[in-house]
Amino acid sequence: MSPSSDVTDLVGRAREGQPRAIARLISLVEDASPQLRDVAAALAPFTGRARVVGLTGPPGVGKSTSTSALVTSLRKQGKRVGVLAIDPSSPFSGGALLGDRIRMQEHATDPDVFIRSMATRGHLGGLSWATPQALRVLDAAGFDVVLVETVGVGQSEVDVVSLADTTVVLLAPGMGDGIQAAKAGILEIADVFVVNKADRDGAEATVRDLKNMVAMARRGIGGPSWRQPIVRTTASKMEGIGDVADALDGHHRWLVEHGALERRRFNRARAELEAIALESVRASFAGRGHDVLEDLAKRVAAGDMDPYTAADELVAGTTRG
Amino acid sequence: MSPSSDVTDLVGRAREGQPRAIARLISLVEDASPQLRDVAAALAPFTGRARVVGLTGPPGVGKSTSTSALVTSLRKQGKRVGVLAIDPSSPFSGGALLGDRIRMQEHATDPDVFIRSMATRGHLGGLSWATPQALRVLDAAGFDVVLVETVGVGQSEVDVVSLADTTVVLLAPGMGDGIQAAKAGILEIADVFVVNKADRDGAEATVRDLKNMVAMARRGIGGPSWRQPIVRTTASKMEGIGDVADALDGHHRWLVEHGALERRRFNRARAELEAIALESVRASFAGRGHDVLEDLAKRVAAGDMDPYTAADELVAGTTRG
Repeated sequence: MSPSSDVTDLVGRAREGQPRAIARLISLVEDASPQLRDVAAALAPFTGRARVVGLTGPPGVGKSTSTSALVTSLRKQGKRVGVLAIDPSSPFSGGALLGDRIRMQEHATDPDVFIRSMATRGHLGGLSWATPQALRVLDAAGFDVVLVETVGVGQSEVDVVSLADTTVVLLAPGMGDGIQAAKAGILEIADVFVVNKADRDGAEATVRDLKNMVAMARRGIGGPSWRQPIVRTTASKMEGIGDVADALDGHHRWLVEHGALERRRFNRARAELEAIALESVRASFAGRGHDVLEDLAKRVAAGDMDPYTAADELVAGTTRG
Repeated sequence: MSPSSDVTDLVGRAREGQPRAIARLISLVEDASPQLRDVAAALAPFTGRARVVGLTGPPGVGKSTSTSALVTSLRKQGKRVGVLAIDPSSPFSGGALLGDRIRMQEHATDPDVFIRSMATRGHLGGLSWATPQALRVLDAAGFDVVLVETVGVGQSEVDVVSLADTTVVLLAPGMGDGIQAAKAGILEIADVFVVNKADRDGAEATVRDLKNMVAMARRGIGGPSWRQPIVRTTASKMEGIGDVADALDGHHRWLVEHGALERRRFNRARAELEAIALESVRASFAGRGHDVLEDLAKRVAAGDMDPYTAADELVAGTTRG
């Protein structure tokens, strides 16, 4: 069998909902296997249907518990749900998250839920190209909703999540100062705010802070714009999760009505293909142009050449022939 | 005056130690100004002398206090010290750090100390090219040591710090589980371990964990290798800071004796010029090839083309003519 018919067969089985075929396809894209291009080509016609929801927030807000609760809620609506849980690439934050993942095991036996952890450490530009490809696999496999969950600890993590159709930012009580300092960044990316652990002291203060932030940001905005809802949840008790699902539906309707869904998906596709193109250029630096790169780096290190002149020569040398 | 003689004049004044000239040069590189190339060319002959020390560690270990204490210690040795404090790009971690920075104000009136905070949020690939350029400014301005400090929260932050001549990883008591889970990542990048807050409960347990990690990692290593020292400090009381300075000197000597300093600087130059080259390719996608990128992204979003085929066309279209 040629690799191509192998891949066609895998995609067919993934579309029938076979978890092993889905897992295998994700591995093929994640490992940048030789079949990667075959896989991408075979998936393309079946993509563009899933709703993509990003979830992010600082460590300790209960992201995994919330994701798991949201999966339960979406399953009650009869939706098939894929989850991409992106492990942070920091060497310092591995521990807590690995523990969190275990909480999602309750969905492990549900054939209509597919959960995949993606470790991105060590992949240069890993998040920017591997995650969208895994997302394409789940989209083509017919999941109605794909949740992309990541701890908001780095620019690349935030970039990926903010390319979702809808981005949910989770917060918890007792982070008041952090919210104040970070409000510009949070407002930029959030479509829906969730204040989790709403049964704890300080939850109302957090909601109030967020309301003020949203109100201030809306001042002076002309024309129709999305008013970011603030939903209170206690995910560990499933409280408020239905409201989150409603907020997601509300935002989806708004996107469709305002032609904004198409714009978001276009932006996602653009970012995705740009990342792939840059990765292929980078690979060409290290491949055929390897000696050129080494030689130029030596001259820069010695102070004989500035890095901008060297970069020009590298680009010229790689693209010329 | 032509921009070029402007820049030559600025570099001259920076080399005389004028803080405003240094600050101006860093702004020129950070903002990717039109003079950026002139600046890079004017700096190149004067670079390669500063020792570059990276400091990183999880939030709450006392990085800024430690950096400030280390500056005090290096000043006592008569060294001129530059500090690049890299603010995290996460929208969630702005608050604490901004507060931390204030602790470094004690050096604000010392003409032989130059401290610069760099915010990287919003700069695509910002860390990977802006920080090395700012480092070149401080190197050319004649600082003996440049400390690059960042919270270890994302791959790009860690990448930058680990390109230093010597990388210091700071930890504090009470992070035992985190260390266990993250040991592979930490061992990869640390040349010197510092256990700060050594006067607190649990400090000895942290040191013991680290010792075990280092010992296990060394098993099976043939030939000469650097044995990562573990230094106890209480930075807020200046305790143990001299030992950190000694450990930095020890590592520097080891690098020189084993020909490893040259290798590290070569790697840094290579990473730097690769990042600049990729940024210039990316800019060309969005510039001349803009219509091509838009058109391809539309076809990918619609499922008419897979992103790999689109990326090939983008690269071909941009580099052809």
